[in-house]
Amino acid sequence: MNDFIYHNTTKVIFGRSAEEHLGEEVSMFGKLLLVFGGGSARENGVYDRVMSALRESGVQSCELWGVKPNPDIDKVREGIAMARENSVSLILAVGGGSVIDTAKAIAAGVPYDGDPWDFYDGSRAPGIALPVGVVLTIPAAGSETSMTSVISNPDIPDKRGCTAPCLLPRFAVMNPENTFSLPPYQVACGASDMLAHMMERYFVNTNCCDLSDRMIEGAAQTVLNYAPMSILSPFDYDARAELMWAGSIAHCDILDRGRGEKGRGSDWASHQIEHQLSAFYDIAHGAGLAVVFPAWLKFVRKRNPRKLVQFGRRVFHILGKSDEETIDLMIEKLEGFFRTIGMPTRLSELGIGSEHFAEMAAKAVEIKKNNLGSYVRLSAEDVEEILNIAL
Amino acid sequence: MNDFIYHNTTKVIFGRSAEEHLGEEVSMFGKLLLVFGGGSARENGVYDRVMSALRESGVQSCELWGVKPNPDIDKVREGIAMARENSVSLILAVGGGSVIDTAKAIAAGVPYDGDPWDFYDGSRAPGIALPVGVVLTIPAAGSETSMTSVISNPDIPDKRGCTAPCLLPRFAVMNPENTFSLPPYQVACGASDMLAHMMERYFVNTNCCDLSDRMIEGAAQTVLNYAPMSILSPFDYDARAELMWAGSIAHCDILDRGRGEKGRGSDWASHQIEHQLSAFYDIAHGAGLAVVFPAWLKFVRKRNPRKLVQFGRRVFHILGKSDEETIDLMIEKLEGFFRTIGMPTRLSELGIGSEHFAEMAAKAVEIKKNNLGSYVRLSAEDVEEILNIAL
Repeated sequence: MNDFIYHNTTKVIFGRSAEEHLGEEVSMFGKLLLVFGGGSARENGVYDRVMSALRESGVQSCELWGVKPNPDIDKVREGIAMARENSVSLILAVGGGSVIDTAKAIAAGVPYDGDPWDFYDGSRAPGIALPVGVVLTIPAAGSETSMTSVISNPDIPDKRGCTAPCLLPRFAVMNPENTFSLPPYQVACGASDMLAHMMERYFVNTNCCDLSDRMIEGAAQTVLNYAPMSILSPFDYDARAELMWAGSIAHCDILDRGRGEKGRGSDWASHQIEHQLSAFYDIAHGAGLAVVFPAWLKFVRKRNPRKLVQFGRRVFHILGKSDEETIDLMIEKLEGFFRTIGMPTRLSELGIGSEHFAEMAAKAVEIKKNNLGSYVRLSAEDVEEILNIAL
Repeated sequence: MNDFIYHNTTKVIFGRSAEEHLGEEVSMFGKLLLVFGGGSARENGVYDRVMSALRESGVQSCELWGVKPNPDIDKVREGIAMARENSVSLILAVGGGSVIDTAKAIAAGVPYDGDPWDFYDGSRAPGIALPVGVVLTIPAAGSETSMTSVISNPDIPDKRGCTAPCLLPRFAVMNPENTFSLPPYQVACGASDMLAHMMERYFVNTNCCDLSDRMIEGAAQTVLNYAPMSILSPFDYDARAELMWAGSIAHCDILDRGRGEKGRGSDWASHQIEHQLSAFYDIAHGAGLAVVFPAWLKFVRKRNPRKLVQFGRRVFHILGKSDEETIDLMIEKLEGFFRTIGMPTRLSELGIGSEHFAEMAAKAVEIKKNNLGSYVRLSAEDVEEILNIAL
């Protein structure tokens, strides 16, 4: 097991009564910037409940609407300007990963003189940020309990992540009832994203990381069980709750302490490849991952099969088969799961051909400074092969 | 799933290099009170490494030695006096659960006018406390990442727990190498304690708590695998690391959110019964639990077998058997595990007879105000029956 530090201070407030605590969490702040997505918060009642809690606590607020999936840096710049004009002291994200990641970028950008893209292209690391609070409405990205924000820059095009302790949310209000009205496709994308967060952490070469292996295996089974249930029975509170809590557990870093290459965390190659796909094609992150991850598994099985066999035996309970057969079946079952919940498993289903493969592959490798992947280190040619497998 | 709040802010610093961070964690404090056990810290080099880190950071300290297993309230009173005399601003526990629990009690007692036993007999709840830091040397109690402290009062005799957010340690320095020299019996007691912490959380009637069920099942398997390894190969770093991290995970409350009766957490009847045993007989807590837990399982199986079957199938992989046979085998395997690591599984092995059963049973039920146990609610007669099963 590798040395590690674990320090996650986000206060999770979870359940049917979660929003009742919002007022006390924000009451010591002067004015808030509320960040929203496209408008569903208005339709499903979340907006009204949030505003009523704020009114009761006597806190003032201003609002930034219109954060899109694959959130872009222009919206971040707009938010920074609004936060400065209004002298806000807390950014409250009301939504899913895109909204939270935008809120984090705004929070770091307000006290910073330069352009916020500096944090994402790696030229600057955010040292301080305004506090961020979250009212989670889409279980997926796990951004509510993570130090990471991922933002797109359509001008380049590029999509990059930034990780810093100051980006960790102060609190996350999580009411599974707020996910009842999510479209099935969005639930499926979320499940795909959280499963990918678990698998990125699982596939490492660390010699002994049994406790976290087993916790990931357990968490993965929870997603495999409750994602289909959430789609088939949208008002099943317990299924929604399992999935919502699984999304936070997946990404709060408790599942990857002591794992991966020292100081590098876990693999994350599939995420990097998907970031290139969604930067070029603006596809949903979860859908991209459902395509990339099985292709990545088919590629790495030749070079490093060990953990794939273990994942097959322990997560999918494939017993009495050879290693090769176990991997075959494991990938088949994983793709079957993605198809069951309505996710694509081939690029062709997303209308994506091989036109930009070389460019995307080069960029994915360049961003990681030729250190893409840790379970298997990938060259640009390897990434192209993975994309070809995914066609 | 029940509503819950999760907020655990302890900074875990884990690994071979953990002590290197001690200086920076304490450097902003004026003077520390160091709390130690019987003297093993002097023999195994931990004391020297801690003092060297403190010297480098220029922090002053005074020392309280001699905390015993089943730590008592007199030592707490002595520590409070010493902390006040020296105007310390942080209590640093160097040891295992007994030392940490004593440090927490001192931390809460310093700013309190009355007697610290008030926090344990339930007449007062600690609202503020000095910060507590930990250098963990015995993986067992999980006190390094918990809000709980358990203290004995030999005058009554009684052993009680107190839980409050202000008791949560600020940081925990955890170097598995510091556990290499632990006597096998102490390793076994620790493993028994952490397994009990997982099982107390596991056996609940909550309808849907699949994610945490599965994480507990994974964590329990880690203890079952690595406790014997740690005893057989004392210098196996990875085995020691798995066990040390499992002890913290077991008790940091990430495994029981959303479970148990609303507001009551999980079961804890076996712990209550064991607290009475070690208050009356001063036996090791882990040894007492290895005796009580199987007896509790044999008692509750008649009234509520469901989770026992699941535990047997998922943790011990007992497949193709009836529910009754699965429970038989599960208890047999659990007792076998305890015996393998050198734990007793009967009170007679500890030289304990039935003389005080009625008194202990009455006290265990009285402390919980007739609400002992949540998986199965226990009367004093039930507790006596469990103790008789354990004979």
